Amino acid sequence: MPNYMLRISFVGSRYHGWQIQPGLPTVQGTLTDALERILSHRVRLVGCCRTDAGVHARDYVANFTTHRELSEEKLLLSLNSLLPKDIGVLAVRKVPEGFNARYSPKGKVYAYLLWNAPCRDPFLYNFSWHVPRPLDRDLMRRAVELVSGEHEFSGFAKLEGERNTRINLRVSLREEGCLLRFEFEASHFLRYMVRRITGAVVRVGMGKVSLEDIEEFLQGRKCPYSAPPHGLTLERVIL
Amino acid sequence: MPNYMLRISFVGSRYHGWQIQPGLPTVQGTLTDALERILSHRVRLVGCCRTDAGVHARDYVANFTTHRELSEEKLLLSLNSLLPKDIGVLAVRKVPEGFNARYSPKGKVYAYLLWNAPCRDPFLYNFSWHVPRPLDRDLMRRAVELVSGEHEFSGFAKLEGERNTRINLRVSLREEGCLLRFEFEASHFLRYMVRRITGAVVRVGMGKVSLEDIEEFLQGRKCPYSAPPHGLTLERVIL
Repeated sequence: MPNYMLRISFVGSRYHGWQIQPGLPTVQGTLTDALERILSHRVRLVGCCRTDAGVHARDYVANFTTHRELSEEKLLLSLNSLLPKDIGVLAVRKVPEGFNARYSPKGKVYAYLLWNAPCRDPFLYNFSWHVPRPLDRDLMRRAVELVSGEHEFSGFAKLEGERNTRINLRVSLREEGCLLRFEFEASHFLRYMVRRITGAVVRVGMGKVSLEDIEEFLQGRKCPYSAPPHGLTLERVIL
Repeated sequence: MPNYMLRISFVGSRYHGWQIQPGLPTVQGTLTDALERILSHRVRLVGCCRTDAGVHARDYVANFTTHRELSEEKLLLSLNSLLPKDIGVLAVRKVPEGFNARYSPKGKVYAYLLWNAPCRDPFLYNFSWHVPRPLDRDLMRRAVELVSGEHEFSGFAKLEGERNTRINLRVSLREEGCLLRFEFEASHFLRYMVRRITGAVVRVGMGKVSLEDIEEFLQGRKCPYSAPPHGLTLERVIL
């Protein structure tokens, strides 16, 4: 059966995350409904990961199989005409039968935005965490260095079933005036991992968490801090 | 009476423009209500210009007078705590009695964003005009050169009363892949001028309007084209 890969971009503000949930608007549900209108049958849409309510994606990968032979271009146009404006299909590609959006990608890149100024920026409030108080950015950079590299990340995660919790993580922090941009790259991520690492690093900047605490979280102590979901964006899926 | 200047930033999507209209949400109305809650009296809030429904501002200037003596910092914090998240007050400053937000500024800078790609960008759909078909960018650059400089702009405007319609306008067009960014700078602007110029220049790129048409619009023939409001942002008010 033909296997189709979709590259999708979405603003997550209106959605309860990727994964279908009865009675709630989700990205997977909205896309599956649009595909059903085009194909006249229900598909099982596989996504590259779950996302939390309010999280965005500039590049999300999904796939589905169908007995119907479709033109990639036509499918792209039909989907974009049916979908709401906060979800866009960037590309449709026929892929080999063995391709699976969940297991085939080699890695992912997430960005977390933080707006650090007394006044909010109305253009960013859906896409960044507004922290009005001053932050110790030197200490934050040192915390970022501590979590970069290969570590056991179970202290920063909600564990679900058997997964490899030892991960080689690359973290960077770029500062553009009031805007702080964290970037996280790894082969795979654990649930809540990015938001909890960001939450802990920002508390280091506030003086509420020490670098020793960060080391202990890396040794398995549970990190109780989290950053709000709306600052998080899945930026790139590495195929 | 003390005179206070506000520098404001707002996302215009939810508003019927700046100017108060009975029964409709407007930026001036929302700000005047917030000021009334703080001051316990109604103020006459003067804005630097009207904006159309859906137009945004990164830097808008307004002023009001009150018999009350207020701390600039307190007023800033109170306003930001009362206002909805799509309006932010960036600064509050006590200014000389003669300052008037409408007449004192020396100029303004507007930006117009255009997303020129077959697929929309969900992150930009509230802030840019999506034009899916290919555009002749060389011709557009020539049209931009034609409208730059000192001209009579009545052909591009809805005229209201006596205003100086001879304006020295600086226009630039910057291309970053699919994103086209027009920038307009002048001492003052006529109603609908930026949207009609952008509308005409984009039709040049589509092959629907010729450079000769542009020259005729500059000689007073009415331009019937316009660009949608949500791509327009007031970027800077020059004091």
